[in-house]
Amino acid sequence: MSLLTETVAAIMPASADAMAAAEERQSMLTKPRGSMGPLEDVGTRLCGMYGECPPPLPEPAAIAVFAGDHGVCAQGVSLYPQEVTLQMVGNILAGGAVVNAFSRQVGAEVTVVDIGVAGELEAAPGLLVRKVAAGTADMTTGPAMTAAQVQAAVEVGIDVAREVIAQGNRLLAIGDMGIGNTTASAALISVFTGLDVADVTGRGTGIDNAMLERKVSVIEKAIKINAASPKDPIAALAAVGGFEHAGMVGFLLAAAALRTPVILDGVIACSAALVARAVAPQAADYWVAGHRSAEPGAKVALAHLDLVPLVDLELRLGEGSGAALAVPFVQASARLLREVATFDSAGVTDKK
Amino acid sequence: MSLLTETVAAIMPASADAMAAAEERQSMLTKPRGSMGPLEDVGTRLCGMYGECPPPLPEPAAIAVFAGDHGVCAQGVSLYPQEVTLQMVGNILAGGAVVNAFSRQVGAEVTVVDIGVAGELEAAPGLLVRKVAAGTADMTTGPAMTAAQVQAAVEVGIDVAREVIAQGNRLLAIGDMGIGNTTASAALISVFTGLDVADVTGRGTGIDNAMLERKVSVIEKAIKINAASPKDPIAALAAVGGFEHAGMVGFLLAAAALRTPVILDGVIACSAALVARAVAPQAADYWVAGHRSAEPGAKVALAHLDLVPLVDLELRLGEGSGAALAVPFVQASARLLREVATFDSAGVTDKK
Repeated sequence: MSLLTETVAAIMPASADAMAAAEERQSMLTKPRGSMGPLEDVGTRLCGMYGECPPPLPEPAAIAVFAGDHGVCAQGVSLYPQEVTLQMVGNILAGGAVVNAFSRQVGAEVTVVDIGVAGELEAAPGLLVRKVAAGTADMTTGPAMTAAQVQAAVEVGIDVAREVIAQGNRLLAIGDMGIGNTTASAALISVFTGLDVADVTGRGTGIDNAMLERKVSVIEKAIKINAASPKDPIAALAAVGGFEHAGMVGFLLAAAALRTPVILDGVIACSAALVARAVAPQAADYWVAGHRSAEPGAKVALAHLDLVPLVDLELRLGEGSGAALAVPFVQASARLLREVATFDSAGVTDKK
Repeated sequence: MSLLTETVAAIMPASADAMAAAEERQSMLTKPRGSMGPLEDVGTRLCGMYGECPPPLPEPAAIAVFAGDHGVCAQGVSLYPQEVTLQMVGNILAGGAVVNAFSRQVGAEVTVVDIGVAGELEAAPGLLVRKVAAGTADMTTGPAMTAAQVQAAVEVGIDVAREVIAQGNRLLAIGDMGIGNTTASAALISVFTGLDVADVTGRGTGIDNAMLERKVSVIEKAIKINAASPKDPIAALAAVGGFEHAGMVGFLLAAAALRTPVILDGVIACSAALVARAVAPQAADYWVAGHRSAEPGAKVALAHLDLVPLVDLELRLGEGSGAALAVPFVQASARLLREVATFDSAGVTDKK
């Protein structure tokens, strides 16, 4: 049995009993019912994930940033040259990127997984070198990854999730670094939602109308030439995805199998989540939407995943920055159930 | 010279030089320009408030919860009996309220100011007893506060802000506790924005349509009988405000005079901010909108204050809970300017 098959087989749905207990407890806490909006839903879902009410405090938190390059950059879909992937991974490892600043703010550890960067990185604390290849192939001329590559990349993601959970982390988040990866993400979102490419493709780092039109036609061509279909999710992932996406798919499935919540970042993580859900629908019980990205594909993907984002700040960076900012919200939702007194225990008169 | 006059005279506008330096720095950081949405604006504004770029890290943070009762409760405007104010203050002092749970999450200290609770509180850590009176008078039969009371309450707010800043806090937030205080808030918002009462009045803790209609007519009557007008802000505050609101007005002005940012919570804090801005327009340079409350009056007030809320979670609790959740966002916005590398310093290629 492959590592992927074994992982999928281990995924259990969230505990309905724990969620029912959480709903009852929410109604007894000293606050007007429903006054905590989506945080109440997240708290209840955490109980289902961990299988207990109240849930444990979801800490420590760890953010895994999957980094890879994209052959489709040859088609001129990004404002930044491909070398920026390698440079920005260096910046993250030096602690100078936005995800580092935000992670320090929220007390989360950052791990970078080189799963497909085109270039060599020196060993550094916080870097896991699990390179499957030096970037994907150009998806407009054939599959971005071979069958062996996509399997290896998914297995990297499974291994990484197991490792960070074994280190004691109880709340995970995923981010990305890869010039060109909003192109692969839009392709996956179109394939897995059935929506037109033009409706799910955004400006990434800030391209103009002409480049956006080009990006849409590049994606349409890639989907067509590869006959990418949601019926074979892993084949579709290989066809138009990236190594980051494949790593995230494995990570999302393994975290679900180990009943550990994962906060999704923006369009890259959300597109990977669509693939992972197609592989194992129950795994989605373990995911929380970190933020509402400015990318149109992210909004579409979250709607299809039936997840309500916690942070809404028009962020469009990636790296896991939006997921990082959601960490205190997820932890706060657990604190509501763990720490807030009930009307009875506090001697507060309930409403008339 | 009165304490209020002295405080207003000390308010200086935010530093235009520091904000210009911040805008320039934002464009050099290793992220697509504008990709941090409103967090970039908050970071730039922090530079203006503190008068330096990059700004200091806005910590430690302190939340002042102003608590008071409202004579207008006699008109049947709330689902909860008036005694809940006293009970919930006890709950906050015991650490069992939502604002406590959220403050622990974000590392903020909570101080409760009894500025007008109808009932006696035992001395407790975190409680400042600065009671002006045991609740306001019923605003439908005359002014809620006398001229002497409103002056005393504003001065309490000034004193409290000075104290928490003297303790070393560099980021402040304000919250409230007071059954009936969304009624006073809607009245103030209608007076200071000129909008119809019906357009700025919400369901508070969750009243039904019939009670909402009653609440609107109660507020209309109070504004009319007191001839409340924005031309004399302190008189309007006395007429239809509450002790919490008056305390917040003083707090907001004193924090501005001491160049210290204040995060506004929901509809109560936002209504107080409208009054404070009418007294001293420059003071608004020092305020940050914590969250987009579910109360319609809060949205209106924020639009009039030209502030963009950071948290959007449909919260409708008060206590400072929404402001507490915004604390890490404000701190993260400072970290962007303090900690993120520039394209030059990180050796990252800028866009083509």
